[in-house]
Amino acid sequence: MLKNLVLTIEYDGTDFHGWQVQKDQRTVQGEIEAALARITCSAIRINGSGRTDAGVHALGQVANFTTDTRLDAKTLQTALNSVLPDDITIIGCTEARPDFHARFDAKDKTYEYRILNRSLPSALSRRFCWHIRTPLDINSMQEALALTEGTHDFSGFENSGSKRSHAVRTMFSTCISRHGDVISIRLTADGFLRCMVRNIVGTLVEVGLGKRSVSGFAEVLEKKNRGLGGTTAPAHGLFLVRVRYP
Amino acid sequence: MLKNLVLTIEYDGTDFHGWQVQKDQRTVQGEIEAALARITCSAIRINGSGRTDAGVHALGQVANFTTDTRLDAKTLQTALNSVLPDDITIIGCTEARPDFHARFDAKDKTYEYRILNRSLPSALSRRFCWHIRTPLDINSMQEALALTEGTHDFSGFENSGSKRSHAVRTMFSTCISRHGDVISIRLTADGFLRCMVRNIVGTLVEVGLGKRSVSGFAEVLEKKNRGLGGTTAPAHGLFLVRVRYP
Repeated sequence: MLKNLVLTIEYDGTDFHGWQVQKDQRTVQGEIEAALARITCSAIRINGSGRTDAGVHALGQVANFTTDTRLDAKTLQTALNSVLPDDITIIGCTEARPDFHARFDAKDKTYEYRILNRSLPSALSRRFCWHIRTPLDINSMQEALALTEGTHDFSGFENSGSKRSHAVRTMFSTCISRHGDVISIRLTADGFLRCMVRNIVGTLVEVGLGKRSVSGFAEVLEKKNRGLGGTTAPAHGLFLVRVRYP
Repeated sequence: MLKNLVLTIEYDGTDFHGWQVQKDQRTVQGEIEAALARITCSAIRINGSGRTDAGVHALGQVANFTTDTRLDAKTLQTALNSVLPDDITIIGCTEARPDFHARFDAKDKTYEYRILNRSLPSALSRRFCWHIRTPLDINSMQEALALTEGTHDFSGFENSGSKRSHAVRTMFSTCISRHGDVISIRLTADGFLRCMVRNIVGTLVEVGLGKRSVSGFAEVLEKKNRGLGGTTAPAHGLFLVRVRYP
């Protein structure tokens, strides 16, 4: 009998070409599918909640797959963790109802972006933070960031080449905080467009540097024009924190 | 005219064979000396406050060296950071009095050891924490750790092969704390013997697991017998936090 299993996955994205399986590239999906094939002796395709780009990390990516394995969820989780490389950890494995789908059923996702804001780079956090030397004004960044809350067409923060029917998404909450030298930006929405978090952060940093006004940030959103926005923040500061389901 | 310059150094120890220069091995001292040679066009030997073993990290290692460079301290720091690999950051560079020596003048050193205490390993913190699956009782660990405070012969926590005149050291303070799944153990002493922190932590973990009593921990210290102690905790959980001078 077929079971529908759901994985919650932590990964260090540094040494992956992103989530999605690609030929001759090391990807998170590829590694997990290879591990499942080894354990179950059958080819299994997993459905991620969404792709993450090369270099992006996850604290709680979610994926599901169907299998006729006799192993129960906990045993399969243990087997996966013993077979997988140490930059992927399966932090949860549970059985779901037969029609559960990690992508289509996702209610919201939370991403966090981390900036190291000090004059010097950091040997210890270089893999997990974007280093910005100049002090950032987080008050003006907070003001700009709050403008993204609610339902908007986010085309102004979308990279080209996306497959999607429309660019309207609902941002449920945003938050920016500083702990020592590290600024964390958290976004929760019902979905994210291609590079949307990194484009919001790249534009927000210009606000924090005083190179762009809060209304200059608002303009990108209102005019739906990616050309008006800032650079795409680098991938290595970004974490997929959580995916929630009804 | 010769200047005596002092560096404060952060490094990710993962990809180094420790601090000390060794032939045909990548070491922190070796990388910094190579960078100084490139910048000043002369061979410079640096004096570290002490060695750190392969895999051990530093938030604030200290080293000094004399040089006839015309570059001022800040310019040299910038030059070093632009030449050094990104797993080493020079976070401070200042001029000291001519007879300052990073090792001989050190007043105390602080080390921190980090343990990830949860059932599952962590892809994201695997380079910086020792993973212990079984819940640790930090109250009994705190009780045992406090016994190390004061002046003792620490032979029971010293690995063999050390060059030192005696094993008496003064532990000024100890502290153990938990933040989420991470347990941090901080030790400040006037000096540390070879693998002393890692041997204390390895033995302390046995106390936390209930495999050893607090008096069993005390016995290692009192009998000065390394054979009675626990395993040496792995290097990758250890950080040299700070070296202080009078």
